[in-house]
Order: sequence, then structure tokens, then C-alpha cells
Amino acid sequence: MKFTDDALSRAKKIKIVVFDVDGTLTDGKIYMGSAGELCKAFSCRDGMGVTLAHKAGLKTAIITGRTSEIVANRAKELKISAVWQGISDKRKAYQELKERFQVTDEEIAYAGDDLNDYPLLKIVGLPCVVGDAMPEVKEIARLEADSKGGDGAVREILEFIIKAQGLWEMATASFLGEAKNDFCAQ
Amino acid sequence: MKFTDDALSRAKKIKIVVFDVDGTLTDGKIYMGSAGELCKAFSCRDGMGVTLAHKAGLKTAIITGRTSEIVANRAKELKISAVWQGISDKRKAYQELKERFQVTDEEIAYAGDDLNDYPLLKIVGLPCVVGDAMPEVKEIARLEADSKGGDGAVREILEFIIKAQGLWEMATASFLGEAKNDFCAQ
Amino acid sequence: MKFTDDALSRAKKIKIVVFDVDGTLTDGKIYMGSAGELCKAFSCRDGMGVTLAHKAGLKTAIITGRTSEIVANRAKELKISAVWQGISDKRKAYQELKERFQVTDEEIAYAGDDLNDYPLLKIVGLPCVVGDAMPEVKEIARLEADSKGGDGAVREILEFIIKAQGLWEMATASFLGEAKNDFCAQ
Amino acid sequence: MKFTDDALSRAKKIKIVVFDVDGTLTDGKIYMGSAGELCKAFSCRDGMGVTLAHKAGLKTAIITGRTSEIVANRAKELKISAVWQGISDKRKAYQELKERFQVTDEEIAYAGDDLNDYPLLKIVGLPCVVGDAMPEVKEIARLEADSKGGDGAVREILEFIIKAQGLWEMATASFLGEAKNDFCAQ
Repeated sequence: MKFTDDALSRAKKIKIVVFDVDGTLTDGKIYMGSAGELCKAFSCRDGMGVTLAHKAGLKTAIITGRTSEIVANRAKELKISAVWQGISDKRKAYQELKERFQVTDEEIAYAGDDLNDYPLLKIVGLPCVVGDAMPEVKEIARLEADSKGGDGAVREILEFIIKAQGLWEMATASFLGEAKNDFCAQ
Repeated sequence: MKFTDDALSRAKKIKIVVFDVDGTLTDGKIYMGSAGELCKAFSCRDGMGVTLAHKAGLKTAIITGRTSEIVANRAKELKISAVWQGISDKRKAYQELKERFQVTDEEIAYAGDDLNDYPLLKIVGLPCVVGDAMPEVKEIARLEADSKGGDGAVREILEFIIKAQGLWEMATASFLGEAKNDFCAQ
Repeated sequence: MKFTDDALSRAKKIKIVVFDVDGTLTDGKIYMGSAGELCKAFSCRDGMGVTLAHKAGLKTAIITGRTSEIVANRAKELKISAVWQGISDKRKAYQELKERFQVTDEEIAYAGDDLNDYPLLKIVGLPCVVGDAMPEVKEIARLEADSKGGDGAVREILEFIIKAQGLWEMATASFLGEAKNDFCAQ
Repeated sequence: MKFTDDALSRAKKIKIVVFDVDGTLTDGKIYMGSAGELCKAFSCRDGMGVTLAHKAGLKTAIITGRTSEIVANRAKELKISAVWQGISDKRKAYQELKERFQVTDEEIAYAGDDLNDYPLLKIVGLPCVVGDAMPEVKEIARLEADSKGGDGAVREILEFIIKAQGLWEMATASFLGEAKNDFCAQ
């Protein structure tokens, strides 16, 4: 994971993490079938990251250029707070998001991978990119995952934010904490 | 394959091997479609490993956090002895498993990849992880596969246990043994 | 990206970019199901490349040996100008393409990966191959992507042509340009 | 590509090439859906290899342990001469194959990846394995592809045999030969 000197202080202020979908929450593959898009490949480890983020009190949202029931299904499964689909200019959805969640730019982290993520990465408090993001967006990111999109990049980003806020122990308590207590006695 | 000094002696006592699914028996990808989860990608080489384990007299089971007909189908195909799905706290299913199969902690191996596997990895006799497991669970594993989840990690783990028990020749006889006998004469 | 000395001057003359599908716009995997081909895996980053090419005024086309509704769906989504499917000898479709778009050989770029792309790669103005193309077609290419087919190779090729024509800033203005203007004031 | 000293002379005698499916013609992934196996991922480059083999006068066949309409579909598409599915002991199907095609052991090449391929690899004239085959079968192979199963391994094997028989130019003539003649004049 690469990050700028100010990434930690910026991460401390984050209240909501916003994700692009294709290439960020997925491996960028569009599995096209005879009747339209067949599926997208999400990562179960990113899913665990979203679960941990929610346990840490963070909100999450999706803003994506494409539209599909697929994204709605995955968002519902992960209890992602809000979803904007079919967005050509992501800045409009971003304004709605700020109003709905009553957050300022510096309280928002955004994770993306390609040129259409540039406008939002430019304004959010913590701009994050996946490991295989395009060079133009890597240049303006303050947090760059080692993992590729759809292969744990979002997990890395969320862990960074949760840890920066000092909430890692709390977020993982139901897995690591109780376990330690219960079984240390053995 | 990495393992601790006591892994071999621990492997000798194993009677049942329990698997996590996503990220362990699969590559961690959630292939989401318009009507819900479309499929999971299992490994044919892991499948052969399960077949060999059964030939060696080992039992197998699955305990997974998600629920799907997909896992039931794969488990049936591989003749996996028991399946628990939709398990948020895996320790409850684990207690049921111990009762049903009348086994103790040290007779159980568990293979996982992420934080929700931590509680079980902490108590079983032989805690195993895939090559791309999260650092928190790697730390408490006694057996770590070189291969990634869904790409042969479970095969490596099962071969280790079968060989530790001195049953490799017996388990592979129908493939390697007979073949050697039959064709050496040629 | 590897390219010959004359690749830049050749790229300047291109008016239409023609793509092979399997192994070029996809990762070469044929996902076969019970009722025939189930899907193909395209790249969202290649898709963005096609969008940028269109913004730069380039036309695009597909000539492929196989036939499926899958390709028609993806082509429609990307607004690819023309599609020829089920073509065993790609030179026939190529002649039709030249007539329909009123272009000469040197105004055409072709991107492929395998032996059946050889005849067209041999005659177009800018023959391009993906990073994992077969050696026989790599030998006659003037542009060779670093990325594999279905994993950004077409994006690389399109960026090379757009930049060679001095149209990169224009093509990316709606993402990078406006963004810079809008948010620099902040 | 690795091969033994006698691989070339053995390849010259081959009349039919027999393939295992999972892990050899595919990447070993079992894409399991709610209603059973959803699909398998074959390689378009292996497909071109089969086409070239047929042009060179070689016959092809499949002997696989699993059963699915999927394999039948792919075999039909590639015009593979004969298919045996649901075969637990591959030697029975092998005997049938020898009778049907009137060939001897030394006229048969077999490509596999795992223990259940061992018996046939042990007897055929040219035993071949994919790059990521299990060590037990690599040990008895005379030809080992660099590529993994489902990612061009079968293409490598078929090219080796076609070239060994001096038929490469003939097999590729419709792609490379005519092209050279037609367009050299340009």
C-alpha cells in the first residue's frame, strides 16, 4: 500500500466511503451473455471489508456509470447505504450524496480506477485507487492499494481507514476479540 | 507449503477436515447475476483431493457464512459428509459437528482464509490457511498452502494430512498403484 | 508497449480501428454452458478506450470468426460502428468494410491475437497485437500492447492512436479537462 | 516447452490426440450454479490448435471423468472426432477408442493434468501434460507445456506434434500461406 504523508490525517475524518464498481469492486471484467450482462465478479474479502467498515460506524455508497440489477443485488447483500447507477457525470450523484448524508468533501473517501473517477477523486478528502488503476488517477490518489480491483483493493483501503480511526479492534472484535477471550482459557 | 514443527504430529490425529467456502474452496469471487449469486468457481484439483481424502478414510465437512444452492450442489458432487450454511458464528456449527461426528478438537482440521475463520482456526487441532489468506489468520495457522484459495490450496492441505497418516499409497492406488502394476509388465 | 519506428506516422492516418473478439477484446476464454456459449469476458477499461476513440472522432468495427448475440450486445453497448460475425475468411468482411466506410488500407488499424488475424494484419496500415498474441502475428505487428487480450490491450492500442493524432486532451476533456477547470478554483 | 529426447520421434507416429477436459482443456475451474454446473472456460487458442490439428489430418478425442452437455457442446464446435464422458476408469474408454479408430498405443497422444490421467499417460505413445499438472503425472510425461491448462497448453502440444510431422506449413496455409502469396505483391 502506497500513501501520501497526509493520508492518515485525512483518513481520520472520513464518515462515508464511496465506491466505483467496474474495475474497483470488480476485476473489470464485463461478463456479457446473450441477454445482456450476465454477472460481475465481486470479492468476498472486499465484502468482509465492508462489513468491518459498517461495524466501525462508517457509511458506504456506490456511484457507477453502468446500470444493472447485479450491482443492486451485491449492494443489498453488503448493506451498502446508498447506490447511484447509470451515472455519466458522477459529480451530480456526488452532490446528492453530500446532501443526503450531510457530509462535507473532507469527510468522504472515494475509491476508483479509471478516468471517469477523476472528477470525484479530485475533490474528496481521501482519494483512493486500486493497484491496477490508470496512471491519470493514480497521480491524484493519496492512497493506492497493492491489490487489483476486485481482488482485495477495497479491503486494503477500508482497513487503512478503520485503523486510522483507531477502530480496528472494535470492528474485528466479534471475530478476533471474542475468540481470543474465549479460547485463551483453553 | 509452510508448516510448524508440530504440524505432522497434529495431522496424524485428524479424522475430519472442515472447509470454509468463499476464498478457500473458491477463488473468493462472488459471481453476482441479476437474480442473485450466479455461480462459484471451485477447483477440479481440490475435488480430486477430497476424493483422495475419502479414500483414505477421512471425513469432510463445510461450514460457511453465506447460503446457496451452489454449495449444496458442489458438496453433493464431492460426497462431502456434512454442510452448514448461513452461519454467522461458526462456533455453533462447530459444536454440532463435534457431536454429530463424535470427534474432539484435536481430531479436526479446518481450512480458511479470512477473519470469520479465526475462531475455529484458534481451536481445531490442525488450523490450515490458503496461500492468499489474511495475515491475521496466517499468524495462527500451522499449515499454510502455497496455492491460493480455489486454485489447489485445499488439495495441498489434504495431501499433507493423507501423507502424514501414511495413507497416500492406499488413497492413490486406483490411479497410480494399479496403473503401475498393470503397465510395468508392458 | 512495443512499436516500430514508423508506428507513430502510421497511427496518424488511422480513421477506423477494427477488432478481433476472442483473445483480443476478451481474455480468450470460451465460457461454454449447457445451451451453448454462456458469456464472454470483456474489459471495462477497453470499453472506456472505445468511448475515448469515438470522442476523438475515430470509427470502430468488429470482424470475428465466431457468431453470438454476446458480441452484438457488447458492440451495441460500446456503440461500435459495424460488426461482422461468423467470418472464416476475414478478408471478405474487410473488403466490405473498406467500401462501407470509404477508407483505404492505410487508414485502417486492426487488433488481433492469432493466426486467423494474420491476413488482415498483413495489409492494414497499423497492425496491432495484444501482449499474449501468437508469435506469428507478433512478428508482423507494428504495435504490441503490454497487456493481455481482454485485460487492457485494446485500451493501450487506442490510447496510442488517439495520442498520435494529438486528440488525447480533447478525448478526455469531459473527464480530466472540465474536472481540472472546475475544481482548481476550489 | 519441456520434452524428452525421444519426444520428436514419438510425435511423428501420432494419429490421434486424446484430451482430458477439466484442468487440461479448461483452467480447472468448476463454475457451479444453483442448477448444477453452469459452464467451463475453454481457450479460443486451444480451439485454433484443434482446427490446425484437423487440417494436418490428425484425429482428436476426449475422455473425461465428469459428464455434462457443456463438453458435448465444445466438442461439437471443434469437430472433435469422439467423446467419452463420465469415465471413472479411463482405460476402458481407451480400449474402445483404440478399436474404433484402429490405432495402436504408439499412435496415440494423451494430454492430462492429474492423477486420474496417470493410467493413460503411462501407456500412450506420447504422454503430454499441461504446465500446472500435478507432479506425479509430470514425472511420466514426455512433453510438458509451458502454459497452464485452459490457457494454451493444448495449443502448444498440438503445434509440437504438427511440426514434428512436418505438416505445419500445410496446416496453417489458409491463414499464413495464402496471405503471404496474396499480399506480398502489394
